[in-house]
Amino acid sequence: MLQKFMDILIGEPLANEQGAQEKYNVPFGLAIMASDAVSSVAYAAEEILLYLVPAIGLLAYNWLTWVSLAIIGLLVILTISYIQIIRAYPQGGGAYIVAKENLGVKPGLIAGSALLIDYILTVAVSASASVAAITSAFPQLDSYKVAIVIILIAVLTILNLRGISESSRIFSVPTYIFIFSMIFMILYGLFKYFILNVPPNQLVDPIKSGEMMENLSIFLILKAFSSGCSALTGLEAVSNSVPNFKKPSQKSAKTVMILLTSLILFIFGGTSFLARFYQAVPLQEGPTVVSQLAYGVFGSGIMFYVIQFSTAIILLMACNTAFTGFPMLMYVVGKDGYAPRQFTIRGKRLGFTFGILALSCVACFLVFIFKADTHLLIPLYSVGVFISFTLAQSGMVMHWKSAKEDGWKYRACINGFGAIVTLITTGIIASEKFFDGAWIVILLIPSIMFVMLKVHKHYEHVASGLRISERALKEVDFKIKYYHLVIVPIASLNRATIGALQYAQSISDNVIALNISTDKIAMEKLKSKWALLDTDILLVSKYSPYRAVVTPILNYIDQISKAAIDNERITVVLPEFETHEKWGSILHNHTGFFLRESLLRKDKIVIATFPYHLGDAE
Amino acid sequence: MLQKFMDILIGEPLANEQGAQEKYNVPFGLAIMASDAVSSVAYAAEEILLYLVPAIGLLAYNWLTWVSLAIIGLLVILTISYIQIIRAYPQGGGAYIVAKENLGVKPGLIAGSALLIDYILTVAVSASASVAAITSAFPQLDSYKVAIVIILIAVLTILNLRGISESSRIFSVPTYIFIFSMIFMILYGLFKYFILNVPPNQLVDPIKSGEMMENLSIFLILKAFSSGCSALTGLEAVSNSVPNFKKPSQKSAKTVMILLTSLILFIFGGTSFLARFYQAVPLQEGPTVVSQLAYGVFGSGIMFYVIQFSTAIILLMACNTAFTGFPMLMYVVGKDGYAPRQFTIRGKRLGFTFGILALSCVACFLVFIFKADTHLLIPLYSVGVFISFTLAQSGMVMHWKSAKEDGWKYRACINGFGAIVTLITTGIIASEKFFDGAWIVILLIPSIMFVMLKVHKHYEHVASGLRISERALKEVDFKIKYYHLVIVPIASLNRATIGALQYAQSISDNVIALNISTDKIAMEKLKSKWALLDTDILLVSKYSPYRAVVTPILNYIDQISKAAIDNERITVVLPEFETHEKWGSILHNHTGFFLRESLLRKDKIVIATFPYHLGDAE
Repeated sequence: MLQKFMDILIGEPLANEQGAQEKYNVPFGLAIMASDAVSSVAYAAEEILLYLVPAIGLLAYNWLTWVSLAIIGLLVILTISYIQIIRAYPQGGGAYIVAKENLGVKPGLIAGSALLIDYILTVAVSASASVAAITSAFPQLDSYKVAIVIILIAVLTILNLRGISESSRIFSVPTYIFIFSMIFMILYGLFKYFILNVPPNQLVDPIKSGEMMENLSIFLILKAFSSGCSALTGLEAVSNSVPNFKKPSQKSAKTVMILLTSLILFIFGGTSFLARFYQAVPLQEGPTVVSQLAYGVFGSGIMFYVIQFSTAIILLMACNTAFTGFPMLMYVVGKDGYAPRQFTIRGKRLGFTFGILALSCVACFLVFIFKADTHLLIPLYSVGVFISFTLAQSGMVMHWKSAKEDGWKYRACINGFGAIVTLITTGIIASEKFFDGAWIVILLIPSIMFVMLKVHKHYEHVASGLRISERALKEVDFKIKYYHLVIVPIASLNRATIGALQYAQSISDNVIALNISTDKIAMEKLKSKWALLDTDILLVSKYSPYRAVVTPILNYIDQISKAAIDNERITVVLPEFETHEKWGSILHNHTGFFLRESLLRKDKIVIATFPYHLGDAE
Repeated sequence: MLQKFMDILIGEPLANEQGAQEKYNVPFGLAIMASDAVSSVAYAAEEILLYLVPAIGLLAYNWLTWVSLAIIGLLVILTISYIQIIRAYPQGGGAYIVAKENLGVKPGLIAGSALLIDYILTVAVSASASVAAITSAFPQLDSYKVAIVIILIAVLTILNLRGISESSRIFSVPTYIFIFSMIFMILYGLFKYFILNVPPNQLVDPIKSGEMMENLSIFLILKAFSSGCSALTGLEAVSNSVPNFKKPSQKSAKTVMILLTSLILFIFGGTSFLARFYQAVPLQEGPTVVSQLAYGVFGSGIMFYVIQFSTAIILLMACNTAFTGFPMLMYVVGKDGYAPRQFTIRGKRLGFTFGILALSCVACFLVFIFKADTHLLIPLYSVGVFISFTLAQSGMVMHWKSAKEDGWKYRACINGFGAIVTLITTGIIASEKFFDGAWIVILLIPSIMFVMLKVHKHYEHVASGLRISERALKEVDFKIKYYHLVIVPIASLNRATIGALQYAQSISDNVIALNISTDKIAMEKLKSKWALLDTDILLVSKYSPYRAVVTPILNYIDQISKAAIDNERITVVLPEFETHEKWGSILHNHTGFFLRESLLRKDKIVIATFPYHLGDAE
């Protein structure tokens, strides 16, 4: 029943051999990458204004331009640095791999943890921002925001469990709609304002010039800058997926990287510039800045809704890139033994079920806690991204240094400069956003790293304990005949215990039936029944005045196993009756379960369960 | 660590033989019984006024007397009827036993369910009323009411898990303080009012004579009557515990019953009478009626606090009687096979741990849901009690009819009259209180009964499936030698799987190593390693393109078991490595667990777990 429902939801299983993936050409690759990287412009300018407007009023629009220019500068530096990574890691080099290979395991794990947090936040932030775009067009949905976001994440989870990579080519359509309508909005907006001199439509009352409350300070500018840095998240995606591009893959990846940067540059710069003249007002609740711009340029016509919907869809697709990235990164980390092995198992549709579900649960939890409010979530966002940027760039410096190929000094300088700039930015973001929530991430990264190291230690311990050399393999004695003692704990004589006793005497001549009784009358009854049996199996019957059953059995078996010789094996056969009613099991004592759990920890003991099927008797 | 903490909290285990219980003499027995039965007067008069005052204003005090008289009449009838039960069931006859023996299983279960609900409500209502007595004296605690009630229930739970029956003799002190101070309050109050003509102190503004909002109706009087019936709860306790009294136990029990009734009569009648002249005002929130009377009579002197505290303590003791009654009833029902067997197991301190915990959890849940408000809880209360009264009385009629001893007609008439009166009362309460919450109880009783019947059927099914006759016992063949086939599922060759294979070949010559691989390279690697082994064990290796492991193993074993002859047993040996880190197990696949669960449902299969201890290798 449940199985059938899951089959319909997730789809029929796919064989290993069906996993070949389509490669990206440039326009398709650009669409895939753009969803994550370009979509963040939908909230970046707003985050900058959110700090500036309440503090310095109208002056904010002036400073918006400058802050945006600083961020665009950073974008250019990062792009050049990342093109280097594409060059050096044609097999795909995420921050985790670059940092691990060049700086060591711990920096690698730091970058990995930062990226994992980043992916989770991508889902939470993008899904929330997507719904914010929808509620800007339909304010009546505002109070269902959290529910809508969680439903969207659930839908994405199901789609990813089915595996949507094959069909994602159709997803490039909304990306291009978004890109072109944003470009059109910027150009037409500027044309209307400067050439036609049409005053903008106002969706929200503009702020008044007198509303300045604070002096302009470097502190404020840094805060605005660190908020705007969220525009740069998603930039690293191209370098991770070099091998997914059509041949020549490095060249295609580089082209996509440059196109991507140009798009961010134009759209982010353009909206910031437009926001200055159209005086969009950042609001804690209500229409987004982009929606105000769209309304300012187009009024409430069709283009307004096109912008809102394509924003919503591209943000959802940004979400979706995390659904590919997170499980893939967990797989890589898991293969290295730093994450639970479950993350390395492909589900029946070839997706990493465990990773997809983990991402979705944590993201939903965040959305719920932060009430789907992007303004609360974004302060957590950029710090992880910039930590991984810094580590990747630093790793590249070491890479060039050790590779020493032609022009390595020049290349090391580029990445070194990138590392310094991103390190400074990380510092700015971490300090400016510390009390807004960045502290959570700064605490989480070492915690995740600690858990990863613990996990690795555990796997190492298990592997070294189980490992056996080829020489030892050849020498294993497969003719050994153990001396077998079989113990059958019984509470009474019934079909199940008798079956277990019969089985026991047929694997060994040394069988002990062990009875621990909490009731003297029942004990005597068992003894007199036992006398009827035609058997030489020894019945050991003990009275337990404190009504414990498990402990006396364990103690008895302990005594025997301590006296056991080297070649002796003690098999404990536990009779267990099985009913067809699943709920029935809660009506019985779980002595067998507790015995088994405790016996597993003892030496020279094998625990066998003899199931007796009640249905059979009827 | 946890074990030690629990030992301190609950105490050292007690042996079966330490369970002998002290018998009650009359004064001690009266104190024990009075806590439940007499304590309800602390809220009964208030419940009556709560319906009358808002409707008919000052006239309410007049009608209070009449309603109280009707309830006292009912009390007398019930007392006479219950003395008959004491006579007929010297071994203790609760409503469950009387109804089951004389009317059949289903009426017995109805009475049992009603009593169980009653016990749960006794805890919820009495604990809430106890805290209401405290907050009447200290109004500043009012907002912590729910928390205080839940803490008190938790303390009672711990005390009962320790077993408090031995020390309960000291608990008769507060009972007698309560009884004597209530009697003193009534007498002194009447003396002050009628002889000294002192006007009462008013804790709460009295109602004005003009505040009549409704006409007096029979409906209203019935509603008040059904609310007041909560005064009669706890009356059945004496008949349940006849064997606990000192010899001659029936005579002692009868004496206690009569004393008890006199006390209820005087204290309930007296407070109702006093409330009339002192014009206590029932409040949804704020001081209780009893506390207003105490203030009216004594002012804020020491006696006011004595009354409040002894009320609080006697109500807590009433709670405590449910902690004895509920687990005992669950034990009796469980012994009969209508409740999960866990309820029949004595914990290490000889109390019925399961019953005590179940009672405490459900009661806390009710307190939480109903916000510790006695006015909301009481409408649920009396209906269950009166259903069990009615069934017990009807059962007694059948008892006398079949026993046919001297004067049986006369006795049957008494119980018959009791049955009719309680049936009518049940009807009144059920209809008047239906929408106030009685519907919950009326729905719950058949639901509980349904579950009990289901549980019984399950136990019957299991017992009949397992049962084996003495003749069959004698004929069991304990010399049978099965043909053994051993299957060892392995993923790779390591110390654990090799140990399991060694064990397997030593219990049978027919061993199959079964490998299901999701990865062709790993499969080839295993095969080449296998070739190194000096063994003739057959390796069956299968590739699973859909990455399922459990299902192919099950299918393979299924095929084999279907082909198995009658005397063949298939033992599946599952290698399992054990680490000392408990959390480690979540890092591994649980293939073994799922295999075991599924294999238990198959025929002719024994599942053995071969544990390999990782610590040993180091």
